Amino acid sequence: MIITIGREFGSGGRELGRRLADTLGIAYYDSEIVEEIAKGSNLSRDYVARVMEKRPSPFFPVGHSAAFAASYDPHFQLNNTIYTQQTKILKEMAARSDCVIVGRCADYILRDFHPLRVFVYAGMEHRMARCRARSATDELLKNENLSDRELAAKIARVDKERSRYYRFFTGQVWGDRAYYDLLLNTADLSMDTCLKAVLALC
Amino acid sequence: MIITIGREFGSGGRELGRRLADTLGIAYYDSEIVEEIAKGSNLSRDYVARVMEKRPSPFFPVGHSAAFAASYDPHFQLNNTIYTQQTKILKEMAARSDCVIVGRCADYILRDFHPLRVFVYAGMEHRMARCRARSATDELLKNENLSDRELAAKIARVDKERSRYYRFFTGQVWGDRAYYDLLLNTADLSMDTCLKAVLALC
Repeated sequence: MIITIGREFGSGGRELGRRLADTLGIAYYDSEIVEEIAKGSNLSRDYVARVMEKRPSPFFPVGHSAAFAASYDPHFQLNNTIYTQQTKILKEMAARSDCVIVGRCADYILRDFHPLRVFVYAGMEHRMARCRARSATDELLKNENLSDRELAAKIARVDKERSRYYRFFTGQVWGDRAYYDLLLNTADLSMDTCLKAVLALC
Repeated sequence: MIITIGREFGSGGRELGRRLADTLGIAYYDSEIVEEIAKGSNLSRDYVARVMEKRPSPFFPVGHSAAFAASYDPHFQLNNTIYTQQTKILKEMAARSDCVIVGRCADYILRDFHPLRVFVYAGMEHRMARCRARSATDELLKNENLSDRELAAKIARVDKERSRYYRFFTGQVWGDRAYYDLLLNTADLSMDTCLKAVLALC
């Protein structure tokens, strides 16, 4: 039982993932993956985290020849190193035991394990409210005092970066229903309800 | 409790709807809606059914000014009559009792009732297999002896017509996750499993 959760920023995917893992009594992987990649690649944790939330190669458009990019872009090799590590680590985690993995292209990387592929999303208004509520503890939001406009821009930017990263390495469209088994809109559904819906598929 | 089910052709949305209504012991509306519209508009059942599966106005692109279309297109008024009837009937049905409604822009028309909005879909291969299995009884498929290529083309055509009809009258994008609470991919999930997932939200 491998469950992968893709999620729009602020939609509650991480909370859903944690609660799923708790309820099922299986492993939960999120920031642990970053730590492992950092160890395996001799890069700093912060650098790995930054790259994984951004487009891998800022100078070349999505779909551009990897060989061409590699020869011109000094960041390309490092990005590739991180993705290679990420692939290796996710496969090790999945082979080790049942687990819930949030983000990290896990649905694609672990496709041979036939994971249950969940995507969680919500309208901007709902996600802003959620971000406000958790801003004291969230890594991407703490110590910031954003206006509504700035917060909306930040949410849109994080999603754009996730979308690019996902597309670059998987060739798939992030959040496109074709690539998931179940999509849940957390705007009108409570987290308890979403949890029950996913558990019904397990 | 109003549940609306949008569905790609051949994905099993109708079966899910029927089983949901049975399990919950609530009304199920599908072809009954066509009958009621036919009665209320003095149009034949067949004509109403045909219009509701097609783009309302074949001569004007989606988004084209309705006023302009109305003055040039002889079909436009009839299409509009049908949609007006459809709106009236769906609202009456929703006000009368809890129910499951498949298709018919019900998610949009009944938005003030805050329905649970489900969308069911699957890859083409899965939908073709499903169509083959039910071709003896399905209204859109019976008495046809289609090659794989013809069947795939037919499925794509029906979906395109549904998508246009939906967009024309709702201004929304058919199947876009933003307009639903839950999307289910029936390619890898059994109908029993999908049923359980939706019931978890009720």
